[in-house]
Amino acid sequence: MSLDDVLARIDADMPAATDRLLDLLRIRSISTDPAFKDDCDKAADWLVEDLQSLGIKAEKRVTPGHPMVVGHIDGPGPHLLFYGHYDVQPVDPLDLWDRDPFDPAIEDTAKGRVIRGRGASDDKGQLMTFIEACRAWKSVHGALPCKLTFFLEGEEESGSPSLVPFMEENRDELKSDIALICDTGMFESKVPAITTMLRGLLGEDFTITGPSRDLHSGMYGGIGMNPIRVLSKILAGLHDETGHITLPGFYDGVTELSDEMRAQWQGLNFDHSAFLEDVGLKAPAGEQDRTPLEQIWSRPTCDVNGIWGGYTGDGFKTVLPSQASAKVSFRLVGDQDPEAIRANFRTYLEANLPEGFTVEYRTDKASGASRMSVEDPAFEKARVALSDEWGIPAAYVGCGGSIPIAGYFKEIIGTDAMLVGFGKDDDQIHSPNEKYDLESFHKGTRSWARILHALSPSS
Amino acid sequence: MSLDDVLARIDADMPAATDRLLDLLRIRSISTDPAFKDDCDKAADWLVEDLQSLGIKAEKRVTPGHPMVVGHIDGPGPHLLFYGHYDVQPVDPLDLWDRDPFDPAIEDTAKGRVIRGRGASDDKGQLMTFIEACRAWKSVHGALPCKLTFFLEGEEESGSPSLVPFMEENRDELKSDIALICDTGMFESKVPAITTMLRGLLGEDFTITGPSRDLHSGMYGGIGMNPIRVLSKILAGLHDETGHITLPGFYDGVTELSDEMRAQWQGLNFDHSAFLEDVGLKAPAGEQDRTPLEQIWSRPTCDVNGIWGGYTGDGFKTVLPSQASAKVSFRLVGDQDPEAIRANFRTYLEANLPEGFTVEYRTDKASGASRMSVEDPAFEKARVALSDEWGIPAAYVGCGGSIPIAGYFKEIIGTDAMLVGFGKDDDQIHSPNEKYDLESFHKGTRSWARILHALSPSS
Repeated sequence: MSLDDVLARIDADMPAATDRLLDLLRIRSISTDPAFKDDCDKAADWLVEDLQSLGIKAEKRVTPGHPMVVGHIDGPGPHLLFYGHYDVQPVDPLDLWDRDPFDPAIEDTAKGRVIRGRGASDDKGQLMTFIEACRAWKSVHGALPCKLTFFLEGEEESGSPSLVPFMEENRDELKSDIALICDTGMFESKVPAITTMLRGLLGEDFTITGPSRDLHSGMYGGIGMNPIRVLSKILAGLHDETGHITLPGFYDGVTELSDEMRAQWQGLNFDHSAFLEDVGLKAPAGEQDRTPLEQIWSRPTCDVNGIWGGYTGDGFKTVLPSQASAKVSFRLVGDQDPEAIRANFRTYLEANLPEGFTVEYRTDKASGASRMSVEDPAFEKARVALSDEWGIPAAYVGCGGSIPIAGYFKEIIGTDAMLVGFGKDDDQIHSPNEKYDLESFHKGTRSWARILHALSPSS
Repeated sequence: MSLDDVLARIDADMPAATDRLLDLLRIRSISTDPAFKDDCDKAADWLVEDLQSLGIKAEKRVTPGHPMVVGHIDGPGPHLLFYGHYDVQPVDPLDLWDRDPFDPAIEDTAKGRVIRGRGASDDKGQLMTFIEACRAWKSVHGALPCKLTFFLEGEEESGSPSLVPFMEENRDELKSDIALICDTGMFESKVPAITTMLRGLLGEDFTITGPSRDLHSGMYGGIGMNPIRVLSKILAGLHDETGHITLPGFYDGVTELSDEMRAQWQGLNFDHSAFLEDVGLKAPAGEQDRTPLEQIWSRPTCDVNGIWGGYTGDGFKTVLPSQASAKVSFRLVGDQDPEAIRANFRTYLEANLPEGFTVEYRTDKASGASRMSVEDPAFEKARVALSDEWGIPAAYVGCGGSIPIAGYFKEIIGTDAMLVGFGKDDDQIHSPNEKYDLESFHKGTRSWARILHALSPSS
């Protein structure tokens, strides 16, 4: 079957494909906030209908949380599973958006045309690159080049609580030769990349309680221990002066890079100054004895994602608050054990609480790191297809983020995952004014058409 | 003129007096939040009308902020000025209130009857004790026992921005022999007290900015410096292990207690364990080489009154935030110079910002500490009147809180201030479920009737 006709069809269909994506972006599918439950449902319905229009047997599958979208279509050659997620991050702080995050539009910028809106890059725009590639194949050849399963999730941005039980219950149905995942980016916004290392994630969401009620700092200031003071001390103690994390046993299971991978990464000539300057930062803040790429891809981290306590409104309130809260997360690598680190963190935290203080924990988010085995020839075929599309040799890279699904495919389904994505560093995912380059959308779609061709028996 | 008739009149009028107070408590006069500007105005109107009903020439006086209420009435003997404030603290966290804070009511509790609602104790209930005492005098004798000026403020809970300019512009009008202030409490909720030492207050409300936008902690975690980590370290560094404040020069101007005052305070046998246990705390958190009463009354403090940054909603958002903010306040004593401490704090903060980080400051709240000179015989007359009402020898005490007005009377008007109040330690001022004991309201009113009598020429 001819690839060139498919690519030409993608080029011709770009305006309609973009309109379809804008349609999907208008749905407010924020999974972490229960207020948007119906919107998540609506996004799932939209995808079911779109997949059905391609002749795929697709349906919405109920979970205790947001639904899964699962679709199957028969075809020649290997059985490929495609994974993406239709849920998006919250949009606050809303006042920093230049437009309604759910009223997406094409914008001309100094760096080219972009699709602006929440989810444009993470992950609705990315997942549509694959669906649009399939649409073009179907339209040109009346069929798809491989046997395909679609598996689209609606809880990726809220810890995927239903994912593992669903995969375990539907293990046979999801069994496939390789899983394709489109939720990652290009290296330095220009080199096409297949991600082969992903950091894990451990989250702790907790509240420290000291006094039984908010106190007047005039009456109790000095003599009364302030929970914000306690929390600050606990958080400040998590890093030492050299950027290392101080929890006992934290680095157990952290693996060193192979010489080969280290050499390959050095060859990428990562410009960390430009990477940081682009977001207003100056010096790398991680472990000072590690290279910047290691800090992002292969070293574990600890970050405070949120903190709150006391009076935070306009003006001043001289309160000595009863409580102080924080959300802390750890990015994990190698064989670090999330549960062991959780236990060590809690031991450290509780050892630093003054007598009479208590702590309440709210979350149990945790996943270990993943490493793909790139020996499967499909990886090299895909790398060549990507290189052909972009005119640049594609690279095997690491990723600082956590995409636990990659590990689950290996553990539960026994399938290797291939992570290919077209996000750029300045896509502002998880931030106000998220965007996806029109080039990412267009060439991303063309890339999947090429990868499908490369993996099909007809190539 | 007979005091006994006035006291009997107060007893008989208590139900009506309580209704009047409930009326005033229904007005949502939160001064720090611009949304309640009209309510502050309404509270001022209510007081003007009430004072006028006593034959006092009262009027609302415009300021750049909330209005002042000023009233005059002639009479024999010394010219007394009464100060109180009609504004109240914000009410959040609202979900911790057992009733609408502005739908006040009388409640029966295990410790007796209380008036529940925002401002019941701080300061509407307290200021009405004085007005009700005047009402009883007027009702029984057709006149007041002294020449009186009323000076009621609506910005005490928001830093009193208009107060000093107003006092300076109206210096002659406010000139009086002594200023009476009702905004303090009983010692250990049972010993009537005249407060002669007040801590000053310096507030710093600031935001630290690191990255130019919120970042994904997967992409930037580790290499990107997190403003919450920076803020935590700055706040954690403000106290050393012994509870001392670490800012250079912070203790300059802190005066030691006189042997006489130290002996008097030791004689009060302050039960700090009960004081702390009542609010769920165990050990004193201030300077470990100081007694608990010193920690509250005569030692300076540093507290974080509010902190916020990153994602604080439900669920998890793995953001590396652009900003982190805090409200920090210092209680000052003796001759500590608020501006020198502000400068030292900012120097410390800025020295701990990583390269490229910036800080924005939002407030300029500052006032030094006050000490009254108790040689004026009016102090001893008032102390005897209080002792008579409560059947317990009244004490000269310190106060951890800051009532800058006391210092302003001395500096601007040249008048000593006498601080007498009937608040209890468990009044929960500045907290949810604020209350004022009906006993405080009743015996407080009787106390002022006695003090007016003691200071009048007819006594």
